[in-house]
Amino acid sequence: MRKVKVGFQGELGAFSQEAVGQLLGDRAAVVPCPRFEDVFRALDQGDTGASVIPIENTLAGSVHENYDHLLHFDVRIVAETNVRIVHNLMAPPEVRFRDIRRVYSHPVALNQCLDFFRKNPRIEKVPFYDTAGSAKMVMDEKLPDAAAIASTVAASIYGARILRRSIEDDRQNFTRFFLLNKTRRVLPPPRPVKVWKTSLVFTTRNIPGALFRGLSAFALRDLNLTKIESRPLRGKPWEYLFYVDFEGREEDPVARKALGHLAELADFMRVLGSYPRG
Amino acid sequence: MRKVKVGFQGELGAFSQEAVGQLLGDRAAVVPCPRFEDVFRALDQGDTGASVIPIENTLAGSVHENYDHLLHFDVRIVAETNVRIVHNLMAPPEVRFRDIRRVYSHPVALNQCLDFFRKNPRIEKVPFYDTAGSAKMVMDEKLPDAAAIASTVAASIYGARILRRSIEDDRQNFTRFFLLNKTRRVLPPPRPVKVWKTSLVFTTRNIPGALFRGLSAFALRDLNLTKIESRPLRGKPWEYLFYVDFEGREEDPVARKALGHLAELADFMRVLGSYPRG
Repeated sequence: MRKVKVGFQGELGAFSQEAVGQLLGDRAAVVPCPRFEDVFRALDQGDTGASVIPIENTLAGSVHENYDHLLHFDVRIVAETNVRIVHNLMAPPEVRFRDIRRVYSHPVALNQCLDFFRKNPRIEKVPFYDTAGSAKMVMDEKLPDAAAIASTVAASIYGARILRRSIEDDRQNFTRFFLLNKTRRVLPPPRPVKVWKTSLVFTTRNIPGALFRGLSAFALRDLNLTKIESRPLRGKPWEYLFYVDFEGREEDPVARKALGHLAELADFMRVLGSYPRG
Repeated sequence: MRKVKVGFQGELGAFSQEAVGQLLGDRAAVVPCPRFEDVFRALDQGDTGASVIPIENTLAGSVHENYDHLLHFDVRIVAETNVRIVHNLMAPPEVRFRDIRRVYSHPVALNQCLDFFRKNPRIEKVPFYDTAGSAKMVMDEKLPDAAAIASTVAASIYGARILRRSIEDDRQNFTRFFLLNKTRRVLPPPRPVKVWKTSLVFTTRNIPGALFRGLSAFALRDLNLTKIESRPLRGKPWEYLFYVDFEGREEDPVARKALGHLAELADFMRVLGSYPRG
């Protein structure tokens, strides 16, 4: 089987790589990229066949930068998946828990393990650019008193030993990821789909009640909105783009009518993709 | 005149300090705080009489962390103001423009001056924790080849010389700030108010059309929504808090009816404050 090149942001072992595995299994050949913009550009230029990006986390909220990229690059959302974020404390095999004085990880991950740091006040939090990158670094540098917080996959890739599993404060910690394509060729394996979702972006005319009227296109047809996100509209201070997810498939007659209705009311509208609920 | 202690995040010379000046003039004795959370806590504990926080920028979008703090601390929004963000290149007086090889500033500021860096490819961007802090640092360290990007106020506070004024890519760069009180005692000087605004936060019941119904409380009364922001609801994955600003004053009869209507439809609702439009 020919593998598909799939871009994601971060080092090998990032949570995005777990999402790639959930979506495409061993059909994917992962391509780590330094920045989200690089992930989008690689797909846009045909260097990769698909991209996987985080779009929101149940604790930290939306990844706003990726909402902006979805507007600026001509790509389609073809699938979504949710990854439970499990933070593990890991170090080189020779480091014992009682020797640890510093723990490296991405600031968001450090802030999701505050109970652990409260219970171990001798251990200092050290912000690092990436969770998996922090696992790689403590292994490369062989620091005798340092550990990292990262995923199970990162531990196995870099040969780190997990000293404490699942040290996150809140188990309700999920990140939602999108699979992006230029065309619709790279899809997850087919499975029976109960519920479809559609993502779109629009701007309203600058008149009172404009957002309410826009949302009426869905509400009057009993189409369930699952998410609304706003981003500033460049060049028009204090005006906004709205990103909406609703339950329905672009090709369905009711959804088509709702999208036509919204297009009538909106200044601008673009469908970003339809995909099975994750 | 007794001065009021006013907390803000950042070093002396931060853009928040410009907002303090616009809101309270020389009645304010500014109290710089390291983190936004410290700004809220100082007000909550009575260590300051007021706080000034940024809430959104026309290019970068909302300051989501502050939306979360507005929910968790019992404070009131009593005024708003918009500050035009002007980025200046500054260095110690003895540094010439042609000697500069590195420019320090907050990553958001660096990314708002990309044209400048494109035109001066010999100059490297170096991310720093704070704009005003970067001005302070290049002055303290007397680096012969370094400059900072910060506000005019920062240049005058730290004695830096401005080498290039207004190097931001987009002049439509404004940040909106809130003045917060525990009580309503620390207010800007009275002035005739044309338009009031009210900010509130609510959660909907988890049923189809819930957000649409919530917004009907305003739309059906011709109350203009100026902003909607969503944040994840902790403990309920994929459910959200909605923050809404509308034109109207909490005490006005129509606004009171709208708020009563929303309270009827919402699971939870809290008014964060009414204030004159900035």
